[in-house]
Amino acid sequence: MASASIVTIGNELLAGCTTNTNASYLCSRLLSVGIPVVSSYTVGDETGEIVRALKRAVDDAGIVIATGGLGPTDDDLTREAFAKFLNSKLQTDSALLEGIRRFFAERELQMPEKNARQAYIPAGAEPIENPLGTAPGICARMKEKILFALPGVPIEMKQMFEESVLPILEKQGGGQFTVVRKVRCFGAGESAIAEKLGNLMERGRNPLINSTVDSGVITLHIVARALTREQAQQIVRDDIERLRSLLGGLVFGTGEQTLAEVVGKQLAQRHKTVATAESCTGGLLGKLLTDIPGSSAYFIAGWITYGNQAKTNELGVPAGLIEKYGAVSEQVASAMAIAARQKARSDYALAVTGIAGPDGGSEQKPVGLVYISVSDSKNCRTKQFLFSHTRDMIRQRAALTALNMLRIGLKD
Amino acid sequence: MASASIVTIGNELLAGCTTNTNASYLCSRLLSVGIPVVSSYTVGDETGEIVRALKRAVDDAGIVIATGGLGPTDDDLTREAFAKFLNSKLQTDSALLEGIRRFFAERELQMPEKNARQAYIPAGAEPIENPLGTAPGICARMKEKILFALPGVPIEMKQMFEESVLPILEKQGGGQFTVVRKVRCFGAGESAIAEKLGNLMERGRNPLINSTVDSGVITLHIVARALTREQAQQIVRDDIERLRSLLGGLVFGTGEQTLAEVVGKQLAQRHKTVATAESCTGGLLGKLLTDIPGSSAYFIAGWITYGNQAKTNELGVPAGLIEKYGAVSEQVASAMAIAARQKARSDYALAVTGIAGPDGGSEQKPVGLVYISVSDSKNCRTKQFLFSHTRDMIRQRAALTALNMLRIGLKD
Repeated sequence: MASASIVTIGNELLAGCTTNTNASYLCSRLLSVGIPVVSSYTVGDETGEIVRALKRAVDDAGIVIATGGLGPTDDDLTREAFAKFLNSKLQTDSALLEGIRRFFAERELQMPEKNARQAYIPAGAEPIENPLGTAPGICARMKEKILFALPGVPIEMKQMFEESVLPILEKQGGGQFTVVRKVRCFGAGESAIAEKLGNLMERGRNPLINSTVDSGVITLHIVARALTREQAQQIVRDDIERLRSLLGGLVFGTGEQTLAEVVGKQLAQRHKTVATAESCTGGLLGKLLTDIPGSSAYFIAGWITYGNQAKTNELGVPAGLIEKYGAVSEQVASAMAIAARQKARSDYALAVTGIAGPDGGSEQKPVGLVYISVSDSKNCRTKQFLFSHTRDMIRQRAALTALNMLRIGLKD
Repeated sequence: MASASIVTIGNELLAGCTTNTNASYLCSRLLSVGIPVVSSYTVGDETGEIVRALKRAVDDAGIVIATGGLGPTDDDLTREAFAKFLNSKLQTDSALLEGIRRFFAERELQMPEKNARQAYIPAGAEPIENPLGTAPGICARMKEKILFALPGVPIEMKQMFEESVLPILEKQGGGQFTVVRKVRCFGAGESAIAEKLGNLMERGRNPLINSTVDSGVITLHIVARALTREQAQQIVRDDIERLRSLLGGLVFGTGEQTLAEVVGKQLAQRHKTVATAESCTGGLLGKLLTDIPGSSAYFIAGWITYGNQAKTNELGVPAGLIEKYGAVSEQVASAMAIAARQKARSDYALAVTGIAGPDGGSEQKPVGLVYISVSDSKNCRTKQFLFSHTRDMIRQRAALTALNMLRIGLKD
């Protein structure tokens, strides 16, 4: 089966000023048409380096896609490198030159002399039209291999890839279709989930399942291959069913869904509303809920009662309660949730109080200790957690866990 | 001079599920200490592929940094690949195993059997401590080359790079000393700042000045080289003086300082306090202020008054005012700030109201329109802004701008 290798070119990529989004775009689009990317190289604007990367890429795969270095300035060397690699000579393509002149003329601009370079193309290669800019692409064949050069400007690259490169590749595709779906989980660690999945995560299996983790959210990537798109989709669907039955309530969503989005959807569907009372998360929980467009339909209000005085003044948490049990306690968490729900006249309220650190911990109440309450019309459930690592991670985990507790409560 | 090559490992990177932020982080940090990255490779979770990439990377540069593939599951093969590449054998490091057991024990969890693999290390290599997770890193030497393996989880990778890898690299730097400092600016675009700096940003100059931008915060990286550390420090100090006089109030800090940290320091030094009233930012402003350890000394309370009702009920903004001018107006912003300050009995209050989109905009009040107020004992200043792009970016920019307005107010 055909596979591909990516070569992204540009000093700015190696200086870290620009995150390489072109590479991930190409990887994901190629995989989606059944062409796995097996390697990806990034090199600076230097002819020798580019040629070396092209050699390695051709060594790795039948399809090579290079981006960047097709601009008009002296540090744009991809055309030269392609010519050198193909053992061919650059020559001016008069139709291309005409197109570039027209691009400027239509904008009532004088074409800078430098732009004439963009009409150079290695003898034997074909140009790829750039509908959005002045840098044409290159398509070259070498034995059974096919190579493309596209501009580095993402919007130009994407359009040329979709309109010109994909049709060429699909024609010579290996006949296999790939379908990728993501399943998102919260509430257990990556290795605990891997253990539950057992040999479903075995290498070489179809579909292939990989996991990635971010702030406690585990994403399972399911990649299926088959001779038709429908078959591949069916394989993925079957596996998602398997995952759901093995993981149960740990699965909260699919695709790019976040916990806040899923909770928001649950609330909106049930015409329910929510309020928040935050101490250690300091507004993060409210921020996550309102990340979602349209959240004003269900998010009523939030209180950031950071100090004890604020807890008493704003939410009426009795000063005596705080004195007796401490601000970080089950009692104060539930008093905050109950008060927030009443004041906001919402259906639910979430409260978080804890010690995010790095200071303020003690033996009885260490950094990472967090109480989270969910209050509804009937009762108020409070749970104790011990989160770890940095202040950021403790706060992030606390806010996500609050959302997850509401999600589970809303499922019943 | 030493140069580096990066190898990022993971099927998810080649599937395009995850954008490769580790590579750009490493590129930018290495450059900032005077080590240019000359190539960057991405490969899947396959031993042969990883070994091949390591060979190429060692071919390219004296320093190789690999990330990813150190997890506990069967598809984590970087340890195996390092052993194979080094022509050595994996052996269990008992101190590492003990550390991993302790990690789970401290959390009152049973260590999954799979995690024992994370204590394997190639004979002759040294482990790198991972203070945030169970995946230790690897440091190996091969002739004059040095190779590192770090986990793929960005937060773990970054901490290990900063705390363990950089000190090792700095020790073996050439005869020249490199000193890097950052100057952080807010309130003007990257190109406006570049124009103010003129030829200070010329390539090849010593010190070299690069700029990066994140959510409107412009970071200027000043990299000086000299034969002694003192000389390099002096060159940087002189340039920072020049930058400060050219950029004036646009400079808010140095190093890793955030706007919230600088504002927090100003408040703490003056024994002043602050409260927040947020509509479109939904808690983000409170979250940023409380990101800072010790913020309870000056952050009193915050109100997330997302709906109109909440603005009236919680902050006493007259319903008639909202009706007459709209919730997104100068009048409502200042009413929110004044009320928050009074209710919290704080010295300052910040209020933000705006349209974060994607919906809810109109011709008069487009998406991105935001009013921000700063209230103190004497008066309340409100400014109108039009921020652009996504909901996230509008909210982020609005919260940072509120902090920046307070910072400028506190300077007087």
